[in-house]
Amino acid sequence: MADLHLLSPGGFRATGVYAGIKTRHAPDVGLLVCDRRAAAAAAFTTNKVFAAPVKVGREHVADGRLSAIVVNAGNANACTGRQGEKDARRMCALAAQVAGCEATDVLPSSTGIIGHVLPMEKVEAGILDCGNYLGNSLEHAMLFADAILTTDLKRKTAAVEFKVRRELVTVAGVCKGSGMIGPRLAVSRGGKSSVRSLKGRHATMLAYLTTDAAIGSASLRQLLGKACERSFNTVTVDDHASTNDTAAILASGHSPAKFNSARAMKSFADALDEVCQALAYQIAADGEGATKVVIIKVKGAANESAARAMARAIANSPLVKCAMNGSDPNWGRIVSAAGMAGVPFNPDRCALSLSGTTVFRNGQAVPFDRAKVSAELAKNEVVAELACRDGKSEATVWTCDLSKDYVTINADYHT
Amino acid sequence: MADLHLLSPGGFRATGVYAGIKTRHAPDVGLLVCDRRAAAAAAFTTNKVFAAPVKVGREHVADGRLSAIVVNAGNANACTGRQGEKDARRMCALAAQVAGCEATDVLPSSTGIIGHVLPMEKVEAGILDCGNYLGNSLEHAMLFADAILTTDLKRKTAAVEFKVRRELVTVAGVCKGSGMIGPRLAVSRGGKSSVRSLKGRHATMLAYLTTDAAIGSASLRQLLGKACERSFNTVTVDDHASTNDTAAILASGHSPAKFNSARAMKSFADALDEVCQALAYQIAADGEGATKVVIIKVKGAANESAARAMARAIANSPLVKCAMNGSDPNWGRIVSAAGMAGVPFNPDRCALSLSGTTVFRNGQAVPFDRAKVSAELAKNEVVAELACRDGKSEATVWTCDLSKDYVTINADYHT
Repeated sequence: MADLHLLSPGGFRATGVYAGIKTRHAPDVGLLVCDRRAAAAAAFTTNKVFAAPVKVGREHVADGRLSAIVVNAGNANACTGRQGEKDARRMCALAAQVAGCEATDVLPSSTGIIGHVLPMEKVEAGILDCGNYLGNSLEHAMLFADAILTTDLKRKTAAVEFKVRRELVTVAGVCKGSGMIGPRLAVSRGGKSSVRSLKGRHATMLAYLTTDAAIGSASLRQLLGKACERSFNTVTVDDHASTNDTAAILASGHSPAKFNSARAMKSFADALDEVCQALAYQIAADGEGATKVVIIKVKGAANESAARAMARAIANSPLVKCAMNGSDPNWGRIVSAAGMAGVPFNPDRCALSLSGTTVFRNGQAVPFDRAKVSAELAKNEVVAELACRDGKSEATVWTCDLSKDYVTINADYHT
Repeated sequence: MADLHLLSPGGFRATGVYAGIKTRHAPDVGLLVCDRRAAAAAAFTTNKVFAAPVKVGREHVADGRLSAIVVNAGNANACTGRQGEKDARRMCALAAQVAGCEATDVLPSSTGIIGHVLPMEKVEAGILDCGNYLGNSLEHAMLFADAILTTDLKRKTAAVEFKVRRELVTVAGVCKGSGMIGPRLAVSRGGKSSVRSLKGRHATMLAYLTTDAAIGSASLRQLLGKACERSFNTVTVDDHASTNDTAAILASGHSPAKFNSARAMKSFADALDEVCQALAYQIAADGEGATKVVIIKVKGAANESAARAMARAIANSPLVKCAMNGSDPNWGRIVSAAGMAGVPFNPDRCALSLSGTTVFRNGQAVPFDRAKVSAELAKNEVVAELACRDGKSEATVWTCDLSKDYVTINADYHT
């Protein structure tokens, strides 16, 4: 298990190279190729301002097939007009040349600064260079994972394997995301009209998933949509949906496992959920300036959208996030955030616990050991759970604290 | 004009005293009294978690008459259950005793920490003490203005006078608000059912207005509601609607001016708007950790709610606020914030200017002098104006930048 990585599923090769787009010396162009036209699905940002690669990517994944993913970091190719679209298509054409596939079977991605035309000379050289270094080792997987990072401090990877009868199946993935995080991903069938809006959240987050499962694109679309809802769309660092958010999965079909039973499909769905959730959690943990993961759980809400609205209002409150930074059990900010979410909420019929200690019940403070709760809040994972008695719906949102470092990173990151 | 203050309108006296509720030595109990049962109106938070004084205040203003306002700072009397309500009523009873009026004609207010029972011994002594120091001088007005402050660095006051034919009329006010700011005030007629929801924003903000105009409570309610929409409800520091937000106006009727014409009423409405806007602007300028006021204007939107949604999405984006802190013309964050507001928006048909310089037009960057724009953004008032071509609606939101000091204030402010 420990050795599983993005390229463990059969049929995939990848690499990442430094092409000079990032200001620091680190891989910034990545290429992932499959040995066949893989069944594929992708979910993209629902921001009305979307980058050129998102436009092109929606087109290319529309037929449910992809052979490669080409990505650059350091420049988002967003708000770049016709030139941007031309550049995104050029990236696909070059990647196709290297991968030996059609340009329309390549998904392009970019992440970085908005509003600057891509330095295409560097990007082109980088893509061609990738052709010299493709492989399927752990090192190759790490190079690809590193090539998509921007302000991330940590590489983000996850993989699980499971068996269908006696046949092994692997689902793996890598992702990036640290700031401009609050994805509101929607699965795409290509073109504008077919984007199904999944109620979600925001980031520039990119996630690429591989599997050797022999599963068709219709199932992949459905399962990726559900998985995103329970993972990337439940993360918020700064509640800012990016122009470039993308999550894509390619299924090579190398595994002989048969997915002709509900049980087999369930195993796959669970594995996909597990990988996406592990990746999403890493985004929250690596949020810009974050010192801890803050898990907001709302239970017993009148309906699912109310549960989500409250969880997100709490998670996005700068006051709550600062209190978490200070390990301060300031429950008043949490309860009042729930009260302003614009959904049914009765403070006189709920309880709030912080990492296991009840601090508020039925409209009033509950005496608690402040030093003990503060010590719990100083840990690298904190849970705030609001238990209502208005219904049976629940929601969980992953966020992080708001620190001075977040301000430093975002006030000093100059365009 | 320069000498006008809260107590300039005839019939009002006030003061503020230090009762030991605040940790620092500054006035923390204030009392404002009118020499008669004044026509009155008040708007309160729409947060479902509202403090005891808000509940009692809604009851007391229901008949459109108030004789006094009693307020304490340092403790919000929120989430304090039955004891909290009892304490709020006790504050009214004591204030009534001092003012020589009915307890049901007193509006109570509290601001400060949530979830702690009021130190009533101190509060009671403070209210009684106020009785010894009531007056109508500038100094008395300042003492009352200071008594409502919490994390505010500056006293907030405004006043204007105008003439109806030859008779002078004055409208004046004081307010507080620095953090937990994003008011969503709704005018109250008393009781839960009669709260009319004004689409708005959030804070703990308190605002008290006086006038000598002879205007009835029905008109006051209507005009206060409109004034709040154009002032307090357009301010956001951290988009957090408080449990205690309150704006109230008392009209003594001392001025002989007749308000029996549309023109006279218009003059009053304009004066009220001007005072409320001047006060609201001061809240944005004194936002916790703020180094500048950031004015977000959206024009040419498809409808008013779309204009507001975009303006608020931009104003509340931590990424935009941090860029403003760094005087960075990072227009990509502004445009993408508009794009995720969930309303009609076409980036290919809009233009964005920063303090007068166009930086983005029709989906793409516009070349501009970065040093010059950065210098403009370093001033203490910055304007970001998004001009769409989707309709004729517009909205303005006042906010401030997000600085490390905001984090310091809110991470280190311990419960």
